[in-house]
Amino acid sequence: MNQSIQAIRFLGADMIDKASSGHPGIVLGAAPVVYHLFTEHLKATSTHPKWFNRDRFVLSAGHGSALLYATLHCAGYKIGIEDLKQFRQLGSITPGHPEYGHTDGVEATTGPLGQGISMAVGMAIAESHLRAVFNREGFPLIDHDTFVLVGDGDLQEGVTMEAMSLAGHLQLDRLIVFFDSNDIQLDGPTENANSDNWALKAKSMNWHYEHVADANDLSALNQAILNAKKAGKPTLIEIKSIIGEGALKQGTSQVHGAPLGAQETERIKQALNYPLAPFSVDKAVYDDFQKHFVNRGETAYQAWELLWKDYQKAYPEAAKHLHDIMSGQITVDLSASLRILPLGTKEATRNSIGKQLDRFSELLPALMGGSADLVSSTKVHGLDGNYTKDHREGRNLNFGVREHAMGAIANGLTLHGLRGFTGGFFVFSDYLKPAIRLAALMKVPTLFLFTHDSVAVGEDGPTHQPIEQLSMFRLMPNLTCFRPADANETAYALHYGLKETDQPTLIALTRQNITVQHESSLEQVAKGGYVAIDKADYQGILIASGSEVELAIQAQEVLEKEHHIPVRVVSMPSLELFLSQPESYQESVLPKHCQARLAMEMGASGLWYQVAGKVMGIDTYGMSGPLEDVKQYFGFTSEKVVEKVQNLLKKA
Amino acid sequence: MNQSIQAIRFLGADMIDKASSGHPGIVLGAAPVVYHLFTEHLKATSTHPKWFNRDRFVLSAGHGSALLYATLHCAGYKIGIEDLKQFRQLGSITPGHPEYGHTDGVEATTGPLGQGISMAVGMAIAESHLRAVFNREGFPLIDHDTFVLVGDGDLQEGVTMEAMSLAGHLQLDRLIVFFDSNDIQLDGPTENANSDNWALKAKSMNWHYEHVADANDLSALNQAILNAKKAGKPTLIEIKSIIGEGALKQGTSQVHGAPLGAQETERIKQALNYPLAPFSVDKAVYDDFQKHFVNRGETAYQAWELLWKDYQKAYPEAAKHLHDIMSGQITVDLSASLRILPLGTKEATRNSIGKQLDRFSELLPALMGGSADLVSSTKVHGLDGNYTKDHREGRNLNFGVREHAMGAIANGLTLHGLRGFTGGFFVFSDYLKPAIRLAALMKVPTLFLFTHDSVAVGEDGPTHQPIEQLSMFRLMPNLTCFRPADANETAYALHYGLKETDQPTLIALTRQNITVQHESSLEQVAKGGYVAIDKADYQGILIASGSEVELAIQAQEVLEKEHHIPVRVVSMPSLELFLSQPESYQESVLPKHCQARLAMEMGASGLWYQVAGKVMGIDTYGMSGPLEDVKQYFGFTSEKVVEKVQNLLKKA
Repeated sequence: MNQSIQAIRFLGADMIDKASSGHPGIVLGAAPVVYHLFTEHLKATSTHPKWFNRDRFVLSAGHGSALLYATLHCAGYKIGIEDLKQFRQLGSITPGHPEYGHTDGVEATTGPLGQGISMAVGMAIAESHLRAVFNREGFPLIDHDTFVLVGDGDLQEGVTMEAMSLAGHLQLDRLIVFFDSNDIQLDGPTENANSDNWALKAKSMNWHYEHVADANDLSALNQAILNAKKAGKPTLIEIKSIIGEGALKQGTSQVHGAPLGAQETERIKQALNYPLAPFSVDKAVYDDFQKHFVNRGETAYQAWELLWKDYQKAYPEAAKHLHDIMSGQITVDLSASLRILPLGTKEATRNSIGKQLDRFSELLPALMGGSADLVSSTKVHGLDGNYTKDHREGRNLNFGVREHAMGAIANGLTLHGLRGFTGGFFVFSDYLKPAIRLAALMKVPTLFLFTHDSVAVGEDGPTHQPIEQLSMFRLMPNLTCFRPADANETAYALHYGLKETDQPTLIALTRQNITVQHESSLEQVAKGGYVAIDKADYQGILIASGSEVELAIQAQEVLEKEHHIPVRVVSMPSLELFLSQPESYQESVLPKHCQARLAMEMGASGLWYQVAGKVMGIDTYGMSGPLEDVKQYFGFTSEKVVEKVQNLLKKA
Repeated sequence: MNQSIQAIRFLGADMIDKASSGHPGIVLGAAPVVYHLFTEHLKATSTHPKWFNRDRFVLSAGHGSALLYATLHCAGYKIGIEDLKQFRQLGSITPGHPEYGHTDGVEATTGPLGQGISMAVGMAIAESHLRAVFNREGFPLIDHDTFVLVGDGDLQEGVTMEAMSLAGHLQLDRLIVFFDSNDIQLDGPTENANSDNWALKAKSMNWHYEHVADANDLSALNQAILNAKKAGKPTLIEIKSIIGEGALKQGTSQVHGAPLGAQETERIKQALNYPLAPFSVDKAVYDDFQKHFVNRGETAYQAWELLWKDYQKAYPEAAKHLHDIMSGQITVDLSASLRILPLGTKEATRNSIGKQLDRFSELLPALMGGSADLVSSTKVHGLDGNYTKDHREGRNLNFGVREHAMGAIANGLTLHGLRGFTGGFFVFSDYLKPAIRLAALMKVPTLFLFTHDSVAVGEDGPTHQPIEQLSMFRLMPNLTCFRPADANETAYALHYGLKETDQPTLIALTRQNITVQHESSLEQVAKGGYVAIDKADYQGILIASGSEVELAIQAQEVLEKEHHIPVRVVSMPSLELFLSQPESYQESVLPKHCQARLAMEMGASGLWYQVAGKVMGIDTYGMSGPLEDVKQYFGFTSEKVVEKVQNLLKKA
């Protein structure tokens, strides 16, 4: 076997042995595939790891991190031998699973199976879209492949099936997926859990399929890749390999996720006449990667840089847009396009988001996304028509009823410099929660837009009425969750989300009309909570989010006029953002001296006790019925609020 | 067209018109399919809707609820014309989407797409398992089909692909899925979002496939069903239909989810010479259903009752077990099998759950389930070997890496009288959250068991470390979420979950060893929180869940010995269960006079402010590193706890 392949295999094994933790099976089994990809196909360079037109390689089987790190090391990325020795240690750049933004050459955080391949679908969409929009005659600025390595586990995941079905439908011809088909998964032989016919299944979803009988047969692998590049559709290359190849327990699940141990690793090295000590690499290996990977990538990179310079001169306006995309920046003034409605206007905030998104999309070519077969409900869609196999310029993605892949694909768009967004019913945010979490973990600013944010959904009933979802997202680190009170807060929230560069934003919107009843501002919404209505000598504070701000203001008016009780109303579109403000600001909105506070939200109550002693929430499932009946049933009426405030003040 | 079919179609249209809400497209398009199923194949009877050996029919496309209710009405189920008039009204038995336990003849709550077909896979598994275990020569006690109606949306969902892949692998030959293939979905023509070849895709997953060119061609449909029954594998029958057939806007997405309106409905009736006023049904229709559905079902039911009587005499022991399954009861004494370990024992609670589950499984033939390719980690598996196409007696399900379908399939097992359980990594509970929510909404007692419950996962890092998951489940209505402190609390929590008959239970377990450090009891754990360690004149209270109880007790000892500060330690395996106890009990555990309280849990902190002024939590993502390093990094050490208590007491 090729010395470079051995170097990758044994570096990986050494790392896992030293950490006493990791997954050697895929390292030993799939090293030839990754080696061949890097040295013969992958157009990228370790000297400029963020070069925009690089080929993308996503290790969807993220537990194979040692394989990736070892390869990146040999390929000249900023991962030294010392870093490899720190594999899976606190604070190292070689954590247990690859983490985007943490380690050069890692294109996406992977580990949760199915996410990597699905994000890669998003990257391939982004590439083809940017290619169609920005390339000009003689200027193939955007022109690269997206490669993925998956295992059996990835392919069993539903999100993968959604993403593959859509990728086939969209005929993403520059997406090539290597399937490390070793017939073993954690619980034993794959045949215990699966008997899909992959050739047929790929074909049924409009993929091209290739079969490579032996992972070590690099010429067969090469031919399969060449065929894939000509296939005109996405390709699944099934490569038969032996998990933990060379180990005594090769071909069994026992080499999947437990270290070989230094002794066994040494035995394998001896059996293969590989004389080097742990963590040693022969200079010939570095030379091999330099010659076959770095030099090739460097040449391509330099040529591209010249092309980009000429392009900027020839097409300055397009270049400006592309520059923003490549740098992930927004250089246009968004605030001028804020859609602010006068007091008294009635509008469902789902309509507000749709209109505001359209406005921003006109300014920002980076905005691309769509809904999971719900545009007529969500109002969330991309401009410039549908993105299809014949119209790559479109920015609207018809995701179909594939919520989970929608989330992951949007993340892939964002990872590729676009601003991916999604639309759906809020209760079904559950279906894409893993993708939203991954956006937050990767710190990428995908926009997750959801309508039908409460039991006010009405007739569709409890299956379609969110209860615990708002709180679930408030508790998710690195995510800002907004529930705007009206059209204006909606516009500000979307503005906030677009200005964010290092975390995703989620906005939950109403199905029903909401009246703009108070003034608000970008700054106020960006603080998460603010005084919406103030009264001198207020005796209590009503705290509300979303549609309940309208209710709070109604109650405030009744309390004032009919009962001569002045109360303050605080609008809190983002509880967690408010709680992250300096204490002095929090005190100015919710002064300690006023503990007669009632929070109200048509959702789970638990988190609101952080700001109020009394909470009107809904801690059961919803009900099917007309909106007003449902609100009445759950006690979300002005009368009930007034009554509760009176009781609060009696007690105080 | 057949008068009965017209009756179903127009009843459905009338209901939707009256409610001004609902989905007429599927009602008009798929009525012939449901009519034919009921009158020619479905073995069930409205006089005994819960008869155990009935065929199951799951309307996976739950938005077609009007179609189901109208059919059930004609078929004699307890749904009167008045109920149909109350469609989608508050408190009616005809809510927006079918709700299990709420309306006779509804086999599962559906609406969230993909869940229905996946639960039906669970039902078909249950049927085949019970058939293998309980039938005897001449006693075909368990012997029925499972039918499902899906639409394009269902089939685009990842969970469906997972469930179908597994169903094909397991060769569930008595599962028949009708695919209402009308080429339209909400956002327009299906071809905008999908171009899967269903014949090939079904075949690739080892399904039999049938094609019916016209939904109105009942003889072709009949032949397809007959073929399906002989196929020896699950069957997908693709039936071409016209969405909203007969309406002016037939064949477009405009008839999917908006009422036709009384005028248009009247127009269609006239065009078809259907003379009846809204909500009128000709007696001939009832007679038709009586003759072709009820009588057939009644005869089968009566014969079965005799068979069951004889079976009880012939096989009393088996009959006892089957009786428990059919009635959803547990009549054996579980407490005698509790696995209680002495103080000082070290054991990871994932090991505890595995061992306790095995013990209970020996007593309870109803316990069936498994893990998502993680048995070696979760320790959660069923007894009696793997359930396979050749060994239906097995109670262990190799779900493969299909978490979402695992959840839905387990719900299907439970709906069919078994006690489904699942095993996985807690962070990936995100993947099956929609199924867990549905269990809670349906009030079915599925058991969701997860290991690796915190950042103490260690080296696998943030992708594998739960943060917000515990709180997310605590906020989910009708679900009890336990995080046991040690082996004993684990045993009690599982006991609690098994004794529950009307809601699911989730248990989050540790990867790492935990020492049994305090006495506990079934009663204490069932209250959600209790005093684990008490000291006279305690000055503060430490509240903890799971592995942090060990930490709290360590700190308590240091505080007492080194600082002479007596503190009480409260173990709180289920925060929401504790908060649901009478105030007097809560006061006995957490007396108001002692506000120097520190709660600690390696997860999101927000909810703990309901019981403590100070919280040690983790509100960021985790870190990859050895367990002890990670705990140190996040400040979960005895020293930190001691320091915080000292600060708390200084302030007080």
